[in-house]
This record gives sequence, C-alpha cells and structure tokens, in this order.
Amino acid sequence: MNVFDKAMIFGIVAGLVAVIYSISVTIWALKHDEGSEKMKQIAKAIQEGATAFLNRQYRTVAVVGIIVFALILIGGIWIPQFGILTASGFLLGAILSTLAGYLGMFNAVRANIRTAQIAHQGVRPALKFAFKGGSVTGLMVLGLGVLGISVFMLIGYSLTGLGGVIDSLIGFAFGCSLISVFARLGGGIYTKAADVGADLVGKVEAGIPEDDPRNPAVIADQVGDNVGDCAGMAADVFETFSVTIIASILLAYSSFQGLGESELMKTILYPLLLGGFAVFTSIIGVFFVSAPTKEKIMQGLYKGLFATGIISAIVYYFFTMYFMKGVGNYSAMDYYYSALVGLVLTGLIIVITDYFTSTSFSPVKSIAKASTTGHGTNIIAGLAVGQMSTALPVIAIAFSILLSYHFAGFYGIAIAASSMLSMAGMVIAVDSFGPITDNAGGIAEMSELSSDVRETTDALDAVGNTTKAVTKGYAIGSAALAAIVLFGEYSNLIKIGIPDISFSISKPEVLIGLFLGAMLPYIFASLAMKAVGKAAGDIVVEVRRQFKEIPGIMEGTGKPEYGKCVDIVTKSSLREMILPAFIPIAGPIVFGLTMGPQVLGGILLGTIVSGLFVAVSMTSGGAAWDNAKKLIEKGLYGGKGSEAHKAAVTGDTVGDPYKDTAGPAINPMIKVVNIFTILIIPIILILWH
Amino acid sequence: MNVFDKAMIFGIVAGLVAVIYSISVTIWALKHDEGSEKMKQIAKAIQEGATAFLNRQYRTVAVVGIIVFALILIGGIWIPQFGILTASGFLLGAILSTLAGYLGMFNAVRANIRTAQIAHQGVRPALKFAFKGGSVTGLMVLGLGVLGISVFMLIGYSLTGLGGVIDSLIGFAFGCSLISVFARLGGGIYTKAADVGADLVGKVEAGIPEDDPRNPAVIADQVGDNVGDCAGMAADVFETFSVTIIASILLAYSSFQGLGESELMKTILYPLLLGGFAVFTSIIGVFFVSAPTKEKIMQGLYKGLFATGIISAIVYYFFTMYFMKGVGNYSAMDYYYSALVGLVLTGLIIVITDYFTSTSFSPVKSIAKASTTGHGTNIIAGLAVGQMSTALPVIAIAFSILLSYHFAGFYGIAIAASSMLSMAGMVIAVDSFGPITDNAGGIAEMSELSSDVRETTDALDAVGNTTKAVTKGYAIGSAALAAIVLFGEYSNLIKIGIPDISFSISKPEVLIGLFLGAMLPYIFASLAMKAVGKAAGDIVVEVRRQFKEIPGIMEGTGKPEYGKCVDIVTKSSLREMILPAFIPIAGPIVFGLTMGPQVLGGILLGTIVSGLFVAVSMTSGGAAWDNAKKLIEKGLYGGKGSEAHKAAVTGDTVGDPYKDTAGPAINPMIKVVNIFTILIIPIILILWH
Repeated sequence: MNVFDKAMIFGIVAGLVAVIYSISVTIWALKHDEGSEKMKQIAKAIQEGATAFLNRQYRTVAVVGIIVFALILIGGIWIPQFGILTASGFLLGAILSTLAGYLGMFNAVRANIRTAQIAHQGVRPALKFAFKGGSVTGLMVLGLGVLGISVFMLIGYSLTGLGGVIDSLIGFAFGCSLISVFARLGGGIYTKAADVGADLVGKVEAGIPEDDPRNPAVIADQVGDNVGDCAGMAADVFETFSVTIIASILLAYSSFQGLGESELMKTILYPLLLGGFAVFTSIIGVFFVSAPTKEKIMQGLYKGLFATGIISAIVYYFFTMYFMKGVGNYSAMDYYYSALVGLVLTGLIIVITDYFTSTSFSPVKSIAKASTTGHGTNIIAGLAVGQMSTALPVIAIAFSILLSYHFAGFYGIAIAASSMLSMAGMVIAVDSFGPITDNAGGIAEMSELSSDVRETTDALDAVGNTTKAVTKGYAIGSAALAAIVLFGEYSNLIKIGIPDISFSISKPEVLIGLFLGAMLPYIFASLAMKAVGKAAGDIVVEVRRQFKEIPGIMEGTGKPEYGKCVDIVTKSSLREMILPAFIPIAGPIVFGLTMGPQVLGGILLGTIVSGLFVAVSMTSGGAAWDNAKKLIEKGLYGGKGSEAHKAAVTGDTVGDPYKDTAGPAINPMIKVVNIFTILIIPIILILWH
Repeated sequence: MNVFDKAMIFGIVAGLVAVIYSISVTIWALKHDEGSEKMKQIAKAIQEGATAFLNRQYRTVAVVGIIVFALILIGGIWIPQFGILTASGFLLGAILSTLAGYLGMFNAVRANIRTAQIAHQGVRPALKFAFKGGSVTGLMVLGLGVLGISVFMLIGYSLTGLGGVIDSLIGFAFGCSLISVFARLGGGIYTKAADVGADLVGKVEAGIPEDDPRNPAVIADQVGDNVGDCAGMAADVFETFSVTIIASILLAYSSFQGLGESELMKTILYPLLLGGFAVFTSIIGVFFVSAPTKEKIMQGLYKGLFATGIISAIVYYFFTMYFMKGVGNYSAMDYYYSALVGLVLTGLIIVITDYFTSTSFSPVKSIAKASTTGHGTNIIAGLAVGQMSTALPVIAIAFSILLSYHFAGFYGIAIAASSMLSMAGMVIAVDSFGPITDNAGGIAEMSELSSDVRETTDALDAVGNTTKAVTKGYAIGSAALAAIVLFGEYSNLIKIGIPDISFSISKPEVLIGLFLGAMLPYIFASLAMKAVGKAAGDIVVEVRRQFKEIPGIMEGTGKPEYGKCVDIVTKSSLREMILPAFIPIAGPIVFGLTMGPQVLGGILLGTIVSGLFVAVSMTSGGAAWDNAKKLIEKGLYGGKGSEAHKAAVTGDTVGDPYKDTAGPAINPMIKVVNIFTILIIPIILILWH
C-alpha cells in the first residue's frame, strides 16, 4: 500500500471515529429527561421553526447551487479544469456544508431543553451536558471535513490521477464556501432580526422582560439562536476547516512539483493528516472540561481547549518527525515549527479575544462606565474598543505569517493554518455550548421554571458570549491565514500562465486592486447590517399588530401567534440574504475579469486585509457591548432599569448585527472571493494571456 | 532668466496676490457692524477662548517641534540628507502650518459675529458675507502654500543647488504634517469634547436647548467650532496642499533624472505652478457664489466651486500646452489629461459625498427613518451608511489612479493629486462658511436675537454640515493620491539603495506590512475616539458641578463660569492629543526600522488603503447622522422632542467624534506615516543595506 492509500484510510478511519463519537454522545444525550410538558411544547415549537427555516433556506440556496453546478459542468466543454469531477466536488462540498449546518441545528434544538432540565441540578452538570452537546457538533464538523476530503480524493484519484483530483478540489472548496456564506448570512440575519425585533417592541415598547412568553416574537428569537449561532456557525467552521486543508493541498501540489512523487504526495497529505489526528486529540480534550463553580466556567472550558492543544503539539511532533523527514528542502523540524505556530496562534487569539470581550477586563468595563453618560457615549466607547481589539490579533497573525514562512515558505503558512484549524472541533464545542445554554435559559423563562435554573443558565450564557467571540476571532484569524494560502496559490497558478507577471505594489494595477478589494468587506458588511434592519422592521410591525389585535395577550389570557413571527422572519431573512451573498462573486467578476490578473491579485489581498479588520472589530466590539450590558445587569451602575442599563441595551442592539451577522459572515465571504477567483483562473488566462 | 527663476517669481507673485486678496477682504469684512454689546461680549469670550487654546496648543506642539528640529539638525552630522537646510524646511513648514491654523481661527472668530448681525437681512447677504469670510482662509492657505514652497526653493537652490533643496523639502513636508496632526487632533478633541459634554448635561440632563447661555459649556462649545473646524481644518488642508506639491516635486526629481536639466526642471515646477494658477481661478470663482433663496444655498456654493474647476481646466490646458510640450517621454496632452483627472475626481468626490450626507437623498433619510424604532436602529443605519459611503469614492479614486498612471506614470498620479489640491482654496472657502454660520447661530441664540436670524443661520448651517463632509471627503481622497505619490517616491529611493528589492505582495514581508499598516488607522481612530470620551467626561463633571453649586443658574439669575469650562477642555484635549499623535511616528519606527524596508513598504500602503476607508466611513457616516437629526428637527417623524429625535441625537453624538475628530485626523496621519518614513530612509538604508 502506498502512502496515499494509507493516508486516505487513516483519514476515513479518523472521520468515522468522529462520526461514531458524535452519534454515541447524541444517543446518550437523547436519553436525558426533557422536563415538563410545557417545556416540551416550547422546545417542539423551536425545533419546528428551526427545521422549517433551514429547509427553506437550503431550498433557496439549492437553486443557486444547481445553477453553479450546471455552469461548472457545462464549462468543462471548453475548460479542462471544469467538468464533471469539479462539479461533483462542488456538489459534495455544498452537501457536506449543508449537512454540517443541519447537524449543528439538530443537535442544539435537542440539547437545549435537556440542559434546561439538568440546570435544576446546578452549574456543574449543566455545563458538562451542554458542553458534551456542543462537542457533538464540533467533532461532527471536523469528522465530516476529514472524511469528505479523504473520500473525494480517493475516488477522484482513482478516476483521473493526482492532477485531476487536485484541480477539482477547488470545486469542493467553492461548494463549502458558497453554502456557508448563505448559511452565515441567512442564519445571521434571522437570529438578529428576530432578536432586535423582539427586543424593540417587547422590552422597549411594551416593557416585558426578555424571553417573556407574551412576546409573539419570542419563539422566533429562540429559533434564531439555533439557525444562526448553531447551524450558521457549524457550516462556517466546516467551511473554514475544509477550505484551509484544500488550500494547503493545492499549494503543496503547485509548489513542490520539483519533488519526487512520494515526497510530493507527503506534502499534499500532511495538512489533511494533521486534521485526522486532531479528531483523537479533540476527543481526549473533551474529557478535560469541567467547572467546579460558576466563577470557573471559563477556566473549565479553556482547560479542554488547552489540553487538546498541548496533546496535539506532542502528537504532531512525533508524526511530523516520522512522516515529513527528508521531504523537500525543509527539515521535518521546520514543518513541525510551522504547525506549532498555528497552535500557538490559536492560543494567542483566544487569550486576546477573551481580554477584549470578557466582563473581567478593562475594555468591557470601559463600555459599561461610558453607559452612565448616555447612549451616545456607550456607542463611542464600544466602537473604540472594537477598533482597538484588531491590533493584537493582527500583530499575532502577522508574526505567525512571518515565522511560518521563515520555516517553510508559503507552505509553512499553509501548515500553520491547517494546524490552527485542526483545533476546530474543540473550538466549536466550546462555542456551541453558548447558544445551547442561551436557549435553555429561554425555555426555562417561558416554562416558568424556578429562578435558580435561570441563574445557572445565565451564568453559562455570559461565558457563552465570550466564547462565541473567541470562536469568531479564531475563525476570522484562521481565515486570514487560509486566504493568504489561497492568494499564494492564485499567484502560483497565474505565473504558470503569465510567467513575467508582477504583483508589486508599485504597479498601479495591484495598487488599485488593493483598494477595490478592501472595499468589498465594507459593502458586504453594510448590506448585511441593513438587511438585519429591514428584517427586524418586518417583525416590529407584526408584533405591534399582534399586541393590538389579539385580546388579552398582555394579561396572558390570549395566546400570541408565534408561528406568524417565525414565518415572517424566515421570509424576510431569506429575501435579504441574497444581495450581500452576491458581493464576493460579483467583485472578482466585475473588477477582475474586466481589469486583469494584476488587479485581481490586489483585490484578493485587499479583501483579506480589510476583511480581517472589519470582521474582528465587529465581532469583538459586538461581544464587548453585549457583555457590558450583562455587567450592568449584574448590578453595576444601577443595574437593570437604570439609565446606564438603557444605554447598554442600545449598545447591545448595535452589537447584535455586528457580532452575529455582518462580522462572522465576512469570514466565508473572504474565502469565496479567493476560491471563486482561483476557480475562474482558466477564464482569466484566456482573456488576459 | 531661466525657467526656475521665472517659475519662482510667478509662484511668489501668485502667493502674494492670494495674501493681498485675503487682507483686503478681511479689511472689508472688519468694517461690518458687530451688532449689540451683548453680541460683542459673547464674541469676545469666544475669541479669547480660541486664542488661548491655540496659544497653549502650539506651545505644547512647539516642544515636540523643537526636539524634532534639533534631531534633524544634529542628524546632519552623520546623514547628509539631514542638517541645517532640512531642519530649516521643517521649521518653515511647521510655522506656516501653525500660521494657517491661526489665520483660519482669527478670521472665523471675527466673521461669526458679523454674520449674525448681517443675518438680520436674510439668507442672501448672510451667505455672501460668510462665504467671503471663508474665502479669506481658503486663499490664505493656498497662497501660503505656494509662497512658502517657492521662497524655500529659491533660497535653498541658491545655497545648495537643486539636489540639496529637493532633499530638504521633505523636512518642509514633515513640518506641515506633524503640526497638522496635532492641530487636527487637538482641535478635534476640543470641539467634540465641548460639544458632547455640553449636550450630555445641557440638552439631555437639564433639558435646555443647544447654545443656551445657561449652559456653562456653551462658550467652550463655540470656541470648539473655531479651533476644530476652522483652525484645525485650515492647518490640515494647508498640509495636504503643501505635501502633495512637495511629493510631486520629489517624485519628478527622482523619476526624471534621465532628462536634460531644463526638462527635469519643468517636471519639478509644473505641479507647483498649477497651484499658482489656482490662486487666480479661485478668486474668480468666489464671485460666482450666490444663492437667491434658502433652498438654493448648496447650488450657490457649488456654482463657485464648479466655476473654479472649469476655468482651471481651461487655464491649465493652455499653460500645459505651452510649458510641458516636448518634456520627457509623454506628450503635453498626457500631462494635461492627468491634471484633468484630478479636477474631475474633485467633482466626483463632491457629488458622491453630497449624496451620502445631504438631507435630500436616501442615505440620510434612511437614518432618520431608522430613528423611529430607537437608538440602536439609528446607530445601525448610520454605521451601514458610513460603510457604504466608502465604495463610490474608492472606485473613483482607483480609476483616477489607473487613468493618470496610464497617461504619465506615477508622475501622472502626482499631477492628478496636485491639480486636485489646486482646488483647495475654493473648497476651504465652501467649508469655512459652515462653522462661521454655526457660530453666528450660537451667538444669535445667546444674545437672544430675533428667531428669523436663527432661522437664517440654521439654514446655512445645515448646508454647512454637508460642505464640511465634502471637504473631508476631498481632503482624504486627495490624501490617498498624495500618499500614493509618496509611496512611489519611497519605492524609488529605496531602490537606489537596494536595486533588487521587491515589493511584490507575494513576499511575506510586504504582506504583513500591509496588515500592520492597515492596523495604524484603527489604533489611531480608536485612541482619538477615546480621547473625546475622556475629555467630554471632564466637561460633564464640571458642568454638573456648576449646575449644583452656582445658585440661580437655571433661572438665568446666576452667571455660569464659562471660562472654567474653556480652561478644562483646553487642558484635557491637549493632554489627550499626545498619545494618538504618537502613532504615525511610532508605527514606522517600531515595525519599520526593526523589520526592514519591505515591511515598511507594505506598512505605507496598508496605512493608505485602510486609512481611506476608516476616514471616509467616519466623516460621511458622521455627517449623515448629524443631518438625519436636522431632518427630524425640521419636523419629520414627530420633530424635536419626539422619541425619534432622541434616537437621532444619539446618532449625532456618535457622529461627532467620527466626523470631527478621528475621521479627519486620519488624513494628516496617513501622510505623517509616509513622510516620516521617507525622511528616515537614510537610516533604514544604513541598517538594512
């Protein structure tokens, strides 16, 4: 058996282990008590709403998907890199990304109610259960990625050989990315439109608490947590993982053509295998998570993360020394150092994001303080924190790029990105538990469970805000690395067609490409923010109507039409997701095809650079606003109902689309720009050769 | 007489014409009636406060200036490009920039009271007077620029020859930029700290109207308009003009070494001479400004601007055909087209910014509408408008770069930037009239003039918001061009030392430079926003104290201690301006000197790209918020006092530091980064050669 077959078998086994782990934990979880009839009713409404939304969302996306599939298929007549295998790759990537979204949602809408029930027993068991629930999504995403790529490569290789399967992998990546932009946008718009809409009429106008069952938008709000924070996030991180591995494979193939076949093969397989090992180190890491008290939830989660990181570092060492010895011009140690850079960067991003978004440190405290002087100063402080929060992650990323390049060239950056993404399973686990407990809290509130249940879920949820921000920081940080690998691949491929092309920033074409590329995340974010505003407006109108037309709704004698709100926000968020999702495809077409490969090169990098800043400032800034509100709700500066609290609620409302819609969607958006451009390189070369 | 002497004489004559125009208009203006005793008292308090602030600000800055002067002087011992002439250039640039600031303020604090008095007669005479007042600053800035550079070049040339004076011009540019960063920051923090502070306690807490004499911070607020919008802006645009011309001169000198002496000289002088001609076309343009009714104020102003533009286009044609014929490898027509690109870009930026910030179009209307659903949605809408407002200016700038490069290479970009900046006099005139009428309105309010006076000044002020945004868009747009010219010069100079250096974005050094450079405007903006928050906090505390401790202040029987507020905000804004002003110097030193010229090249361009977006989104977004508030105050969605109005006030508060502190200060900040880097190239080459 040669190295390729061995690696593929390992990849498939690792993927299956992850799937088996996920299924068995799910079976274990499903055995847990669902609580009272009322809880079951509510949970069922959430489940139905979430399923209905995802069904409709993916049906909409399927239309786009089928058109793209057909174009790639038919394009094969003229362009050899297109055709059936690339189209199949696209399809498989799209399906797996869809599946990741469904699984994330499926899992969350079942874990929430059980977490609410277990929360009766206190923080420790609730955390353990919710985290295990989250780990199902995490391992599933990691497993699907490793499994999907391995199976596709195995089949593709047997059909067309190495060159053919490599060419078609870009189709796989494009399928993942395209779907996940839609998932992030659709889910992100849904969740925040429902949240903002429910708050505006419920909390602000009618003066009823959050998650109050009298609010007609309350179920829609809960559905949003699942379709946005769970399904959207799962699709997004699945994409980030798969695209990074694929980018590394492509780069290895185009960079190491000079090596012998076995060595070339090793450089191609190495990043994927790191992901395979991560399945095992992540499962081990899961068992390290535990928190004795409320105050130590965060540390408990980090214990799991860092355990996975350290075990991975050890495993990768032995594996790299064995596998990569004598491969190419770099030493095995060089490859290992690059992998280590990725792991350390993961840790750094977590620590930095934690600092900027946790209630324990000065950034969030400064926003809370600024709330005492009004809405305006709260917003100013939050925007300032968001902007400042970009600096350290960017410095960390910049030095990681420099270091990993120093060790093994562009391939070193690819290894760092892959090893960073190998932590995805654990990161998702830490992230997913947040919306699960958030939802559990909602269910507890609506089914009028005792207040200590809500206290337990609230304590977990506050930590969830930070872990969600951390995941987003991680996703966007790793996306920057992955996108740079894609850019390196773009530059490699273009140079094959046009050997003397220069991407010097002294060239006006490259220079204006940077400007035009930097523009894309701004337009995208602006459209996404506006989309939330519009969809939320629809909900506001409907909730106001119900308050007016349904008698006894405020007294609790009339029943609100929850389904109506779910239906409206479903429709409006699907309508609003189309335009922004179009940007990362339109950008390269409008400016790239018409202005040539140099401009396009600038666009790719401009999008990455500006996207990183826009995304980090939005996700960290948004989370900081949210937690500043939480800090005040704990009693600071007058607590709930005070003027400071009102100002903090404003900040939280602004932070919502920042951190849950526009900010995180920039991550797949950057990659769509890059992958789509690589996909159309053959066309660019025909036009501009 | 050779071409150099002729050109210098023309430059000096043009400069003197501008100065004579300004002095004679000032004499004419000073003859106008100052109104009642009460008005005079108020105006005097504003004058004194403004003068005291500028004195202290420039005293603080002088310390920095003297240190830098000494360093450049002493550096001459080791580095031939430093020494007495460069140090003198630095000093002259710094002094002229200071002078521009003083003159802008001097003029504004005298025009405001007279405008208030003339406003009794209606819109038409008030506009005419206020605009003429503004034109003094505009022509003065233009004239000082042309005069200063001409005199410096003439003397420098006679002392050290062409090479020597060219080397030392960078000192002149650095002097301008450094001072203007301080002026923009100090003035910007002052004006917005006073404004936000006055509003927070006065409008929001005490419920008294804007500019109410019972508010202890009201004089400080008026002072702010003068030191921020007038002095800061004048110093800023003076810097933009001078630096652009100097950048073009440097670039011409390093690019056209292959030409004969007379031709080389012509390429060096051409950009400066365009500025000289602009003095005359601007004076002609001033006479085109007039508005028959309130509704046509904007058109009246634009008439003047476009008249100057069209006349310039004609004059530049004949001049270019005569002067640049047979110079270098490009035809005279090519040079002319490049100049035309600059003029057209000016027009485009004006039209685009007008669209995004005027009350007549959908962006501002959408923010006003979003205010009806609360503070949060107002902010979301404003942020979305700000982000979106970057797209068209960036596309316009990108195509201008491409076009002008197409006509005459990097030198073409320099010509486009210079011709764009030749419109500076007229643009400032249009801008300055805004704060003058704003102040006039304040004086009218405080001296209880009849309400139709306030109506007249309000109508002018609303337009002023847009024209201020237009100027900022213009300044930052032209700054992007100028900075790119500087970057081109950087790349030229580095290549002399290290011929085989590559600035390809495939190099990790260049790549991470882009990230690190893009970070600088984010840190800078964040610090500037925080500075406003802190300084405003100081005012809030003081105003609250006065309301509590001074008896009868709310009944109008006790007199507030205005001076105390002026004093406090002076101190706190000077304290807060230091840290952000440090960023554009620290960036190149920390990352550049330690990481080498490739990283530094990336940093330069990264700063430009990201700075352009941050600045435009802030200045346009801020103006849109302000005008959305004005739209509601006109009666839309319930008018003053409605919930929508309260939300709009929040947006306005956020917009304040956006549009008047952080956003506009990014313009000189970008250039300090670039100029400082060029200044230290000799050191970089020693370290990294």
